[in-house]
Amino acid sequence: MAKEKKLVEAITSMEEDFAQWYTDVVKKAELIDYTSVKGCMVIKPAGYAIWENIQHELDRRFKETGVENVYLPMFIPESLLQKEKDHVEGFAPEVAWVTHGGLEPLQERMCVRPTSETLFCDFYANDIHSYRDLPKVYNQWCSVVRWEKTTRPFLRSREFLWQEGHTAHATAEEAEERTIQMLNVYADFCEEVLAIPVVRGRKTDKEKFAGAEATYTIESLMHDGKALQSGTSHNFGDGFAKAFNIQFADKDNKLKYVHQTSWGMTTRMIGAIIMVHGDNSGLVLPPRIAPTQVMVIPIRQQQAGVLEKAQEVKDALTLSGLRAKLDASDKSPGWKFSEQEMRGIPVRIELGPKDIEAGQAVIVRRDTREKITAPIAELPAKVAEVLDTMQHEMLERARTHRDAHTYEAVNKEEFKKIADEKPGFIKAMWCGCQECEDALKEEAGVTSRCMPFAQEKLADTCVYCGKPAKALVYWGKAY
Amino acid sequence: MAKEKKLVEAITSMEEDFAQWYTDVVKKAELIDYTSVKGCMVIKPAGYAIWENIQHELDRRFKETGVENVYLPMFIPESLLQKEKDHVEGFAPEVAWVTHGGLEPLQERMCVRPTSETLFCDFYANDIHSYRDLPKVYNQWCSVVRWEKTTRPFLRSREFLWQEGHTAHATAEEAEERTIQMLNVYADFCEEVLAIPVVRGRKTDKEKFAGAEATYTIESLMHDGKALQSGTSHNFGDGFAKAFNIQFADKDNKLKYVHQTSWGMTTRMIGAIIMVHGDNSGLVLPPRIAPTQVMVIPIRQQQAGVLEKAQEVKDALTLSGLRAKLDASDKSPGWKFSEQEMRGIPVRIELGPKDIEAGQAVIVRRDTREKITAPIAELPAKVAEVLDTMQHEMLERARTHRDAHTYEAVNKEEFKKIADEKPGFIKAMWCGCQECEDALKEEAGVTSRCMPFAQEKLADTCVYCGKPAKALVYWGKAY
Repeated sequence: MAKEKKLVEAITSMEEDFAQWYTDVVKKAELIDYTSVKGCMVIKPAGYAIWENIQHELDRRFKETGVENVYLPMFIPESLLQKEKDHVEGFAPEVAWVTHGGLEPLQERMCVRPTSETLFCDFYANDIHSYRDLPKVYNQWCSVVRWEKTTRPFLRSREFLWQEGHTAHATAEEAEERTIQMLNVYADFCEEVLAIPVVRGRKTDKEKFAGAEATYTIESLMHDGKALQSGTSHNFGDGFAKAFNIQFADKDNKLKYVHQTSWGMTTRMIGAIIMVHGDNSGLVLPPRIAPTQVMVIPIRQQQAGVLEKAQEVKDALTLSGLRAKLDASDKSPGWKFSEQEMRGIPVRIELGPKDIEAGQAVIVRRDTREKITAPIAELPAKVAEVLDTMQHEMLERARTHRDAHTYEAVNKEEFKKIADEKPGFIKAMWCGCQECEDALKEEAGVTSRCMPFAQEKLADTCVYCGKPAKALVYWGKAY
Repeated sequence: MAKEKKLVEAITSMEEDFAQWYTDVVKKAELIDYTSVKGCMVIKPAGYAIWENIQHELDRRFKETGVENVYLPMFIPESLLQKEKDHVEGFAPEVAWVTHGGLEPLQERMCVRPTSETLFCDFYANDIHSYRDLPKVYNQWCSVVRWEKTTRPFLRSREFLWQEGHTAHATAEEAEERTIQMLNVYADFCEEVLAIPVVRGRKTDKEKFAGAEATYTIESLMHDGKALQSGTSHNFGDGFAKAFNIQFADKDNKLKYVHQTSWGMTTRMIGAIIMVHGDNSGLVLPPRIAPTQVMVIPIRQQQAGVLEKAQEVKDALTLSGLRAKLDASDKSPGWKFSEQEMRGIPVRIELGPKDIEAGQAVIVRRDTREKITAPIAELPAKVAEVLDTMQHEMLERARTHRDAHTYEAVNKEEFKKIADEKPGFIKAMWCGCQECEDALKEEAGVTSRCMPFAQEKLADTCVYCGKPAKALVYWGKAY
């Protein structure tokens, strides 16, 4: 009882302290736990099951575009990491170094991969000889390590899980096409499955990936008005190919460098789900990603026939293809409701003796608390319909929230006032100079999130320096 | 053409040099590649797809028994590794040590997990309070690192992929039951899916896992007569619980230590598939684990209608639920046959103009080369039947081979003669002393593989020392 009470009472409200609310939810919904390894976390069953669903959905979408999965070593010899100048500068300061194997010091130290461009390049240099070997469209699911100073569950941890795609192509055009294609896979996945609307765009040179020619990104807005970079896709041109000498004999018999891409999505998306959809009762999971979609909760379960009927209902839901569970524990219905809400299970079904007598049950939506009474025989169809509606409305609600927190600024004063007072995206024109980016960071505390593919012309001049504008940029404070 | 020729010609025969044959197959079937990281390998698409199928099948079987997946950090602080005395002695000499994070030396060095008992114990000590929290039946899919001196693809590498289950129970009986249950899951999986017959048994104290009370194992026999430990399941009793202070309040309100188990299966099973089923044309994959089950190979594909018909056949096979591909490349049919054979694809369908005219096609089994002519319309059903037969016959063939290479010895001379002359398992009685185990290792070059659950009494006395025998043991040279 004491434990259950804590579950319901101890959550901070998001209006009071969003960061604390977030921490409370990840703990109380039993998604993660802290460990003796500073900056690393345990992903518990309720959290890992979300990641498994993300993997399943993404992997299916990848394979439909011809992606093949592989596995490369987790270690990178220091000399390999150093082959591409920008890349090593970007990553060397934040890697973990292995210096001993067993009782012996290593001849050359190795880092635990922070990302695997250099390993894939080393592999491709051996594996690619002819245009017949192209394209290579490989991906791996693994964990990576970046020695961050400050960490937050899912959003920034020293070790995290992700997938990293690495491709090699005969032409620059094909590489660019693949880069955009994978960004669109991410964007569609976020919107269709996670119910998170995204802005698709390109990173400025300042914000692009270490070693990339161009980085594309999808940016989403959390409930507190902060931005989250949710997936990136990089076009490397032939920069890595030249550093690693990845050449192929083309159809014209000439030796040419390949063109490469990479793209990744991580467990931070679980953090995004929490911060876009969660509320003061806990997690709210979009039905398509929820490990359990329906919790059947019997009322007065000690009365004859109630548990049996609840089990029947659960079985019928499962049979119809829904992910359903029955909570037959000896807790009170009220506690079961609170737990189901805390864990973000999209729908619960309340079923008591009176309902059974009337041949009906009550469906309760997690997001709106809406109650829908339906005949027991029609529950599978009705619940499927409710889940579908919920999925779409969650996306629309998030989109409305995002749009309501997207502002426009045409001069510096306006920009700084918005940045100060209104958490959200700020759309503003930019001249293309890093000086203005740096100044806006310094004076308004924001970074450029992306230059959206859907460009608009809000003004002729840069919001900071007043010189001619080159692009519309989304700015924001970011996780 | 040069490349194709190499594919077919350069494989060493297994009778001539089994080790070289093995290396040739893993390379030419494109399962793995070597890397700049000594002792680590790239698992290429053809190899990783086998692992994905293994994961899929095992994970489904695990979940049916109530297993939940989690993810724990890859790093173990040295002080944590040292908490259980036997365990640290077993693993400390062969771990990789991380000593620096970014530019700073760590306060305490950490190893990359060689296995995660200590991390799970640390986690469970925080997470388990009451009998209501039990059992915990958790598993993780990850990579582990053991700094081996000599390595072989799949069989022994410095980094490998596996799953590791770690459970905690209220009673010793329940822990023992789970240990045996998971061993049986492994055994059934090996026999039903990989077509590899196994001997189920218990390890001697000398061979058991560092820190375990009892280790159970499944042992399989490779084509060359060497044994391979194929999966292990450990009962820890309450030894780790005492070292890590994992206690729970039981129903009688007394504080008690939990009883724990762990169990694992690794990518070495891909090596087992190769060495049990492969032949001098390359890999032979059991149909249930083969990423591609059927390759449709058109003959005279430049003739009008041939490619179209081949595509139709492929589509019909896919629609019926088989994993089918069409090889429409511009190589000759002969080369395509060789490639399909090298890659171990269980069945090919040959389809030329004459076949089409006669409304039929030829199904060729990879294992027996048997040719079966069938009407085109009946191909999906016929191929499914052929694959089913092949799966069963592969298991029976492996069993026959195993049994034909399983010998019995009742005295030392007999034992040593068999060990010298006849590669395979040797069944012999044992007194239970490690001295005799050590002596047989020294004099006959074999290790004890297991004490089989199916005990027999071949003699009254130990095969080595002549004292009263306690158990029948399977002995063998092992990978």
